Amino acid sequence: MTYAPKVHRPRIPGGHWDDVALLAYKQVGSAPFRDVTRQVLFDDPALGCELRYFEVAPGGHSTLERHEHVHAVMILRGHGRCLVGEQVFEVAEQDLVHIPAMIWHQFRAAEDAPLGFLCMVNTVRDRPRLPDDADLVALRSLPEVAEFIRT
Amino acid sequence: MTYAPKVHRPRIPGGHWDDVALLAYKQVGSAPFRDVTRQVLFDDPALGCELRYFEVAPGGHSTLERHEHVHAVMILRGHGRCLVGEQVFEVAEQDLVHIPAMIWHQFRAAEDAPLGFLCMVNTVRDRPRLPDDADLVALRSLPEVAEFIRT
Repeated sequence: MTYAPKVHRPRIPGGHWDDVALLAYKQVGSAPFRDVTRQVLFDDPALGCELRYFEVAPGGHSTLERHEHVHAVMILRGHGRCLVGEQVFEVAEQDLVHIPAMIWHQFRAAEDAPLGFLCMVNTVRDRPRLPDDADLVALRSLPEVAEFIRT
Repeated sequence: MTYAPKVHRPRIPGGHWDDVALLAYKQVGSAPFRDVTRQVLFDDPALGCELRYFEVAPGGHSTLERHEHVHAVMILRGHGRCLVGEQVFEVAEQDLVHIPAMIWHQFRAAEDAPLGFLCMVNTVRDRPRLPDDADLVALRSLPEVAEFIRT
């Protein structure tokens, strides 16, 4: 038989898997973020989707962004908060987060815990867009959002 | 804004989420299985994929089957074993299992623990195929597989 059955062992705690490359979240300087790693767990073209694992270190945050593609998220490790649109949610292990198209979103780990999450996306997707000055004014008009976001 | 940001809270232990329907694994009588539930966590058409959660109760098993579509699996809860092709693997939380096209596979929970796993699949997929008598003879020619499979 020519296929290779694959079982990857986890290295949690530690937040990564055998044989899965630990990648930079984004190019440094391309967008604001702090202490985030990325692993691509599944990207078989036959799936039409990719499953990635992101881990935000304690006190860190993902980029504040939006895009046409949809995110399907499950928190896998630790806890923190996330912005989805105009609301900030407390999130912890096994919570599911659905991020619709063109909705501002950002993940922040707690100060004392990482925030690790699975994120399923379509293989064909647009590039994330960052907020411009007018977007930030609108976002900051909501006190809870103003307190939360990191840019 | 017209979207509804969604955060579903988990109910693990207990193995299910708020607002996510707990479904029968398959139609009773359609294929052999024992003590399996199914939940569809994400099925937004924009994703091109679905993320499902299956939970096999202690001592239970999924159907022995194969199909053209690919499975991308992460164990989320408990432990057990799985057949992928000609090999039986011990699996536990956060292990990743890639099941290529047309490969026989089956999941079995331990006797003393459930086996809960995420399974990502393409939205467009073929129906699973069950082994015929000749397939079973071939599968049972391997002692480890013969001991493992439930039909």
